[in-house]
Amino acid sequence: MGSRHRRAERVAAITALLHQNPGRLFTLAELALRLDASRSSLSEDLAVIREALRAQGLGDIVTTPGAGGGVRFIPALGPEEACRVVSALCRELSDPRRLVAGGYIYMTDIIFSPVWASRLGRAFAFLFSLSRSRLTAPDRPAPPGGGALGADYVVTVETKGIPLALMTARCLGVPLVVARRDLRATEGSAVSISYVSGSTGRIQAMSLPRRALEAGAKVLIVDDFMRAGGTVRGLMELMGEFGARVLSVGILTATAEPSQKLVDDYLALTVLQGVDERRRVVSVVPGPALAAVAGRPEAPV
Amino acid sequence: MGSRHRRAERVAAITALLHQNPGRLFTLAELALRLDASRSSLSEDLAVIREALRAQGLGDIVTTPGAGGGVRFIPALGPEEACRVVSALCRELSDPRRLVAGGYIYMTDIIFSPVWASRLGRAFAFLFSLSRSRLTAPDRPAPPGGGALGADYVVTVETKGIPLALMTARCLGVPLVVARRDLRATEGSAVSISYVSGSTGRIQAMSLPRRALEAGAKVLIVDDFMRAGGTVRGLMELMGEFGARVLSVGILTATAEPSQKLVDDYLALTVLQGVDERRRVVSVVPGPALAAVAGRPEAPV
Repeated sequence: MGSRHRRAERVAAITALLHQNPGRLFTLAELALRLDASRSSLSEDLAVIREALRAQGLGDIVTTPGAGGGVRFIPALGPEEACRVVSALCRELSDPRRLVAGGYIYMTDIIFSPVWASRLGRAFAFLFSLSRSRLTAPDRPAPPGGGALGADYVVTVETKGIPLALMTARCLGVPLVVARRDLRATEGSAVSISYVSGSTGRIQAMSLPRRALEAGAKVLIVDDFMRAGGTVRGLMELMGEFGARVLSVGILTATAEPSQKLVDDYLALTVLQGVDERRRVVSVVPGPALAAVAGRPEAPV
Repeated sequence: MGSRHRRAERVAAITALLHQNPGRLFTLAELALRLDASRSSLSEDLAVIREALRAQGLGDIVTTPGAGGGVRFIPALGPEEACRVVSALCRELSDPRRLVAGGYIYMTDIIFSPVWASRLGRAFAFLFSLSRSRLTAPDRPAPPGGGALGADYVVTVETKGIPLALMTARCLGVPLVVARRDLRATEGSAVSISYVSGSTGRIQAMSLPRRALEAGAKVLIVDDFMRAGGTVRGLMELMGEFGARVLSVGILTATAEPSQKLVDDYLALTVLQGVDERRRVVSVVPGPALAAVAGRPEAPV
């Protein structure tokens, strides 16, 4: 086997390993051992992979220098890819065949699709990176948990936010925490809160096992839909009970109305502007943060 | 840029593309266009990638010959890797610190971990492949839906089965369908069934939107836990209402008792043999299908 062949095989193996463990730090020593290669060869290999990923808009390889350093793969979409994915989602959601009685939009197939969930998780990672400077505390330059944005967890509440939140967490290399709507006997002691749903006015509950989060954790909230914001507000209160800090909130689709939400600060991938049930017209557009990126001549990343 | 360098870059790009779209068929023409390369170079690249993936136990590239043919990446674990993952899971689940009051085992962190979900989804794909000959109908050699096992969908019921089922579906390149515990007004007309929980004896309900599945679909059921089997039996009845055919059932952890389940035929990754709450001993072992593989000198795949 010639060295040219060996390089290509090593590049394939490293690219596969990085993809199968997004966000995880690999030391050069670890890769050298696994692939039986010198560190200098590996450095060249990684440069080639980084270049190929960037050229194809497929993610990035981030290097952490120093003794405990290494490389990790961050599959976050670039600005152009993120805008393309969100535009495709808006077209899909605006399809009048998605209208169901009551003026609701059928989104279940998209939300539970592994292909969409994977794409949208990567788009969320990009969205969160837009507020990276705000997110990464200056006292913590290299988060030990592997969260590329300084987050320790992604948090959501069952059910429809789970695939999106899982794929966002996977993309950032952090665990997922899922609040439940009812108390589970099988999960030990738990913290519960009640909150009033902003859209229906009904009292709802949410709970999380005590051992799901440690005190002082930094979290990103991800959910599929926001009307008045009561559910996310409830999640934020629940995080408060755990002494956790919410770094940012990402929503797949937020409604334009009511414009005054119960949560001040959130990032929406898409905005549902309106539904005209009689004329069968649905209007879903990219969220303000993405619209701003798409409008800029120079991408911010 | 020398040709050696270009080959390595192309190999990185193809490996990344395949990983970001598991189960999806790529034609050589599509790859040639995207990477500006000849088909003969691509064939060589793919051979190198296949060899690297197999050597590292990272999955396989399957070639479909003919006019509509191409290549797809199947990230299913090999037998050795699957056994290793399941052994690690058994050790993790047998940790007495996971015991909670009532003799339950805290599994939530594992079930919602993107790393475990990804690993276990690939282990499920391996597990299902053990019954591949039974699964793949002889009249359907190349399933159009991309399901490597002839399945059109993976099906589960909320909540804790979702991450596992999502990652299994992702691995097989098919959509996920999630039954809900209650009726949702936002999803249009739906089919509901009631069933009796095998362990608690209580009446439960399960529903699925009409448009979630087409008639005649072939499905794989994935769930996190099975005691008496009532929930899976309910899912199978619900599938019957849709005229769908259940090819196989995969369970993360099935209890050894009751040995007589409401479902005859299922594949369990792990078996919970027993919990001694007083002495704080938990025994979780690999399921019979995997134990059989581990015991064989020749791997069946």
